[in-house]
Amino acid sequence: MKKIAVDAMGGDNAPQAIVEGVNRALADFADIEVILYGDDTKIRPYLTATERVTIVHTEEKINSDDEPTKAIRTKKKASMVLAAKAVKDGEADAVLSAGNTGALLTAGTLIVKRIKGVERPGLMTTLPTMSGQNFDMLDLGANAENTATHLHQYGILGSFYAKNVRGIEKPRVGLLNNGTEETKGTPVHQEAYRLLANEPSIHFIGNVEARELLNDVADVVVSDGFTGNAVLKTIEGTAKSVMGALKSAITSAGVKGKLGALLLKDSLYGLKDTMDYSKAGGAVLFGVQAPVVKAHGSSDATSIYYTIKQIRTMLETDVVSQLVTEFADKT
Amino acid sequence: MKKIAVDAMGGDNAPQAIVEGVNRALADFADIEVILYGDDTKIRPYLTATERVTIVHTEEKINSDDEPTKAIRTKKKASMVLAAKAVKDGEADAVLSAGNTGALLTAGTLIVKRIKGVERPGLMTTLPTMSGQNFDMLDLGANAENTATHLHQYGILGSFYAKNVRGIEKPRVGLLNNGTEETKGTPVHQEAYRLLANEPSIHFIGNVEARELLNDVADVVVSDGFTGNAVLKTIEGTAKSVMGALKSAITSAGVKGKLGALLLKDSLYGLKDTMDYSKAGGAVLFGVQAPVVKAHGSSDATSIYYTIKQIRTMLETDVVSQLVTEFADKT
Repeated sequence: MKKIAVDAMGGDNAPQAIVEGVNRALADFADIEVILYGDDTKIRPYLTATERVTIVHTEEKINSDDEPTKAIRTKKKASMVLAAKAVKDGEADAVLSAGNTGALLTAGTLIVKRIKGVERPGLMTTLPTMSGQNFDMLDLGANAENTATHLHQYGILGSFYAKNVRGIEKPRVGLLNNGTEETKGTPVHQEAYRLLANEPSIHFIGNVEARELLNDVADVVVSDGFTGNAVLKTIEGTAKSVMGALKSAITSAGVKGKLGALLLKDSLYGLKDTMDYSKAGGAVLFGVQAPVVKAHGSSDATSIYYTIKQIRTMLETDVVSQLVTEFADKT
Repeated sequence: MKKIAVDAMGGDNAPQAIVEGVNRALADFADIEVILYGDDTKIRPYLTATERVTIVHTEEKINSDDEPTKAIRTKKKASMVLAAKAVKDGEADAVLSAGNTGALLTAGTLIVKRIKGVERPGLMTTLPTMSGQNFDMLDLGANAENTATHLHQYGILGSFYAKNVRGIEKPRVGLLNNGTEETKGTPVHQEAYRLLANEPSIHFIGNVEARELLNDVADVVVSDGFTGNAVLKTIEGTAKSVMGALKSAITSAGVKGKLGALLLKDSLYGLKDTMDYSKAGGAVLFGVQAPVVKAHGSSDATSIYYTIKQIRTMLETDVVSQLVTEFADKT
């Protein structure tokens, strides 16, 4: 039985979306058990699952505008903190939250703790490409600054995840840089290039440019946290803007637009589906001793369901324990 | 008369697209004169303009894969180098090239030279937003690393451009960062925040996130060159992928799709137009002693025409001389 600690109070649509996602996951996956952390009276109205689920009641929670480190240190009874502690104490195998990202990263590092040998856990997510092939990218902003050693480790971490969780036999690992030549970028990127090129456990394909990310240029993209964060937000913002402009172009075309849109309905839904981040799962703080997974703040029940599915796969493939062994061998 | 030195041999469609753009610009703008640098026999077949245009023949040119600094230093007779030298020698007021970006940045810095007081010229372009309001962003990759002082200067440079060339009375200047709080980002970003907030000549609105760039969040966005380059390429790549996916969704919908697309034709063209980078002009190496402007490598005649129009405005508003005065006062 895989035990997942879920922060029921985090995210814009909590607890409803969280609990409804949990209901659905419990119905589909007979091998998981969920512990919900949060306000019992607010959770219970949405909870239809009756088996393999428990509620650990707490009234304290971390808000989206709380200062992360301070919140984790002072709000000892917050739903997110209790969920992370359950993992630390062996009562659960993984933690899921749609709440304050910075706080969850802090909880992951301070409570669940780093894998020995991993200098800086990185935030990683699987991003959809137009072909559906997708890619993993890290660090997406767990760190504002990274050394070449961190980037080297992200290559190993990302490749491990792509191989074990996504089932890609020989993941192509690329380094996000401002040009493809190995001399490009800052001294940190140049050094990271050398370290990645000399790493025998991964298939490094060299530098990749941000323009090519959605064109299946690599299976794993390594980035420093600052740039990764900016690129992720740019993809989200641009896709949203273009789709929004398309929608308003159709709307403003009057009857002709309505009819045209009706004829194209299936195709446009297909496109929306391609770019649907809700099925891609959450962002993983990778490099800590258990799966610590952040669902998007605006997650609906579907996103939560797919994030639980992703956590289940991570537990099934035992990717974190394998990582522990991998890094123990390296140090 | 405004004299523009044009590298006729740079870019994927040179010299045809370059020369055709020049023809059109000469016809529309009676106050400009163009000097074309490149292979006379290749330029002449496309040149229909007969007045205010001269060709300076040279057979040497810089290729897109040439190492920039080496190319500028050794190919003394290259069309790009001669065009830059013409500016330095006072024979022309501005230089335009669609060729090797790195080489043009090097030519700008080494030949045209920095404005006194500007530590590192930045590459800046005007990016279209969905509303048509647009924003200027710099540095887009002239530098792989920037100090807080550079970012401070980019705020001043970008604001100056938005005010004088784009006619925005009080441009809102934002700092691209991984969160809106002033404590966000690397120490360089935190220090840049302080410097920009205390700069009396600009209207600093604080940090902006990459997700909001296309939503008119600021008129000028300041970024370090590495992140700016990644964000620009991400916007381009994402917009292209989404539009490509839309196109293939329509195509694969068969007759229904064709009919729907026909009804939506005007709207979809409108959307394409909104995102049309070709009318936005080129990227300016801002902070050197004359307009040094890079048109996109894939520029067609229309892009070249609009880039010349942009250079004309820069010369008309005398933005570079004003900058020289501004920075002389500051040092």
